[in-house]
Amino acid sequence: MIDYLRDGSEIYRRSFATIRAEAELDGLPPDVERVAVRMIHACGMVDLPGDLEYSADVVASGHRALAGGAPVLTDAKMIAGGVTRKRLPTDNEVLCTLADASVPELAERTANTRSAAALELWRERLPGAVVAIGNAPTALFRLLELLDEGVGAPAAIIGTPVGFVGAAESKVELARRAPAPYLVVHGRRGGSAMAVAAINAIATEAEL
Amino acid sequence: MIDYLRDGSEIYRRSFATIRAEAELDGLPPDVERVAVRMIHACGMVDLPGDLEYSADVVASGHRALAGGAPVLTDAKMIAGGVTRKRLPTDNEVLCTLADASVPELAERTANTRSAAALELWRERLPGAVVAIGNAPTALFRLLELLDEGVGAPAAIIGTPVGFVGAAESKVELARRAPAPYLVVHGRRGGSAMAVAAINAIATEAEL
Repeated sequence: MIDYLRDGSEIYRRSFATIRAEAELDGLPPDVERVAVRMIHACGMVDLPGDLEYSADVVASGHRALAGGAPVLTDAKMIAGGVTRKRLPTDNEVLCTLADASVPELAERTANTRSAAALELWRERLPGAVVAIGNAPTALFRLLELLDEGVGAPAAIIGTPVGFVGAAESKVELARRAPAPYLVVHGRRGGSAMAVAAINAIATEAEL
Repeated sequence: MIDYLRDGSEIYRRSFATIRAEAELDGLPPDVERVAVRMIHACGMVDLPGDLEYSADVVASGHRALAGGAPVLTDAKMIAGGVTRKRLPTDNEVLCTLADASVPELAERTANTRSAAALELWRERLPGAVVAIGNAPTALFRLLELLDEGVGAPAAIIGTPVGFVGAAESKVELARRAPAPYLVVHGRRGGSAMAVAAINAIATEAEL
């Protein structure tokens, strides 16, 4: 047998203690700090708070929406799969429309990526929803366009698209416009795990 | 309309070109370089290669196994969900046993985490399989113990567990023992997206 810690609760406890000891969390509202700690836990990088920008009410607004039954809308199947269902306060729907049969044709017709085209199917669901875009910058840009077109605003937007083309720019644009309470990780970093961590932390205050 | 690139293929092309221009890829075997580029693409961090350690034959061995019909075994549902099925050469099974009904009791009986206990259900499948552990350090430690106990070795082990308790240590131990061709991201970084990117790159040489 190899010598390693095998107690899940104790692993969580020590992990969160390490994060709180090492990460620069001063100045974050307590509820945003809780979300930031969970996002750091998901990516292993304590310097994450330096790239965070957010509305002060994003966690409260997102949680209130989930408590009221709002759906979680996301751009990536990995995010939809990663949200811990038992943390959701009202057995909320978690919806990723990327694999919908209509999306390839929507992408062609709108001359956009499939990730962006999938948001055409969000129009009815978007007002008051909790949105997590953790993969495709084009999906975040398209969300901003839909809100420009007059679609009702979501209750919270978690913006962590990742990568080298448009990711940083889409998050700057979300923070600049702030069409709804939002939280972004600026720069190229991001991804499904961070988005899932944010949703899981917004869903319930419990850390375990 | 916002001005952003909407052509998925062109986004991929520019992303990979940026990664190849910025990342330090010298010295990587060509097939490992291809995997590294895809992993960087998934996390947005061009400094990743500095933390890579690998067997020279890990990509060839993993690909050969998949071409021969081997399953992908993984510790996290997000990884199982993220593997692009159409990249798999033989419609390979992708298996995560974490949600199996027997796992909570196995965890109690073996005094380990559920992530580690879920590997008890891998024993028959493990020889010749492609393993991706991208979440739980305890799962990677438990894999090493199973191989110690004489369970047949997999064809490739992708080790990217993430976090603050045991993650770095489990990956050092995998690289030190090298019980099968392996690839790890040393340190605290890792996660599902990197593991998925590695499997998707091993599955087929095509970048798009």
